[in-house]
Amino acid sequence: MTPEERPDTRTVSQVGEFGLIRRVTDDRRQPESTLLGPGDDAAVVSASDSRVVATTDVLVQNVHFRLDWSGPRHVGRKAVAVNLSDIAAMGAVPTGLLVGLGCSGEFSAEFVDELAAGMWEEARRAGTGLVGGDMVTATELTISVTALGDLQGRPPVTRGGARPGDVVALAGGLGWSAAGLEVLARGFRSPLSVVGAHRVPEPPYGAGPSAAEAGATSMIDISDGLLADLEHVATASGVSLDIRTDQLEVPQRLLEVASALGADARHWVLNGGEDQALVATFPEAAGLPDGWSPVGRVLAGEGVTVDGAEYSGEAGWRHWRQ
Amino acid sequence: MTPEERPDTRTVSQVGEFGLIRRVTDDRRQPESTLLGPGDDAAVVSASDSRVVATTDVLVQNVHFRLDWSGPRHVGRKAVAVNLSDIAAMGAVPTGLLVGLGCSGEFSAEFVDELAAGMWEEARRAGTGLVGGDMVTATELTISVTALGDLQGRPPVTRGGARPGDVVALAGGLGWSAAGLEVLARGFRSPLSVVGAHRVPEPPYGAGPSAAEAGATSMIDISDGLLADLEHVATASGVSLDIRTDQLEVPQRLLEVASALGADARHWVLNGGEDQALVATFPEAAGLPDGWSPVGRVLAGEGVTVDGAEYSGEAGWRHWRQ
Repeated sequence: MTPEERPDTRTVSQVGEFGLIRRVTDDRRQPESTLLGPGDDAAVVSASDSRVVATTDVLVQNVHFRLDWSGPRHVGRKAVAVNLSDIAAMGAVPTGLLVGLGCSGEFSAEFVDELAAGMWEEARRAGTGLVGGDMVTATELTISVTALGDLQGRPPVTRGGARPGDVVALAGGLGWSAAGLEVLARGFRSPLSVVGAHRVPEPPYGAGPSAAEAGATSMIDISDGLLADLEHVATASGVSLDIRTDQLEVPQRLLEVASALGADARHWVLNGGEDQALVATFPEAAGLPDGWSPVGRVLAGEGVTVDGAEYSGEAGWRHWRQ
Repeated sequence: MTPEERPDTRTVSQVGEFGLIRRVTDDRRQPESTLLGPGDDAAVVSASDSRVVATTDVLVQNVHFRLDWSGPRHVGRKAVAVNLSDIAAMGAVPTGLLVGLGCSGEFSAEFVDELAAGMWEEARRAGTGLVGGDMVTATELTISVTALGDLQGRPPVTRGGARPGDVVALAGGLGWSAAGLEVLARGFRSPLSVVGAHRVPEPPYGAGPSAAEAGATSMIDISDGLLADLEHVATASGVSLDIRTDQLEVPQRLLEVASALGADARHWVLNGGEDQALVATFPEAAGLPDGWSPVGRVLAGEGVTVDGAEYSGEAGWRHWRQ
């Protein structure tokens, strides 16, 4: 074995802060929007229309992920995906990511390499990269990601623009992550179609900007569950949203998994979080862009209903919920 | 007592995620650069010259602060200050902050209010505000801040532009935080001049943009200690930097504190971190702007020297240092 091929068994402590930063950023091609990349006091990123979209989401071990269920590469991808999906939900394209990593010195440097590889992999999928960050000592593994984005001249698509008569439409899958979580919680490791979806969501990044282009009146990404997140749209827009179950397909695969577990696949679809699908409202007249399917209607009133009635299942995830 | 005057004894768990976010962001005046503030999937901030400066720094309890030495308002101010000082070190003015807060549900909601009040206070000092964030359950108190900034048409001042013949100059105080740390570590709570400086640094925010305006060739903020951070400039610029102790004043107050503790005040000034002073290099001919004082020279060569000789004291702080 050459020295390059020998596995690196050093810990984070042994490699040190600056060594780790080099491993995460060296030899990585920066996106074109990066004007000044990692290595200085701050990064400089282009903002083509003189505005920047910015969002931050924090993932904590044993709250947002478990290392016995997900590998570091999965966790890295997920930490980036949940942030990039917020950028897409504004109708923007991503222009850069900053990562704050808190971890114990006892972790292997290879663990951090894998985490970073996952972050870069997901960033690349969306056409962007890591432009900066910070690494600190912590007892609890914590990953804070900030994503920046470019609206390309379009107005941001907020949660507040839905109007009675609009169509509610969905891009991306729902219920897959919740199904995977239930499978893992019961001690299984398959089927991979749902377990993989729980480890790493696959947000439909391109659907955000295309919805904005098509005149979407409101948009949000589904982090906490379809009904829970639509409540935010209903409140911000001052409208009621009705989901039609004859339009909201429950995938055959989820029905099979639910049947094997004695669970309710429709509940996963309506209330499962972490798929990072996008839901948006469009003026009735507008044709839905590719990748979007109608799932309901915007009505006058308030709150979220399913087939015109209050849904009796649980609401979405809240931190520190009683 | 009216209900408004009654002290709020609820915990973070009892107030809940969305309640906390409202407490931190409601009724706060957003800076003019905020085009869309907190409450949606992402914020939108203006970027006047089609570029945005972005940096992130994470603070972890018992690594970066101790709650028996600092109150939550101090911690909030410090978390913001260390980030805004990176923005200043690029020669930019801040345009917004995003905060990722991980904390236990057992903390009092009032603690989070105080933390947020400190963040807003420091943000206001620098002319900006909190535009977004995330709050999550964690066992370890962790505060990740991302700061955005505007170069106002100027090129960023990096670490890489120092040239032999340039003057090294300093804005802000050095050694105060290190002195405060030593006082606290020995079980004292005063003098407040140094203890307060350790709790909350006072970066000279305006000195960054004015240095850029005056043609600074390189700049960095002092997080890890003057000599340690100048090493980054020396390496990035491919030069040597020599600090002149006849130009680098050791304040009388620090000499007194050092004398009382049997410590070395000059060591605090040369190697103490966390004051977030700015050090920059200027072409010899250029007059230094207000607030900047010469402390040394840029020479051909490599590394950092003090009065022409290698300094024998300790280097700056590194995470996971052996």
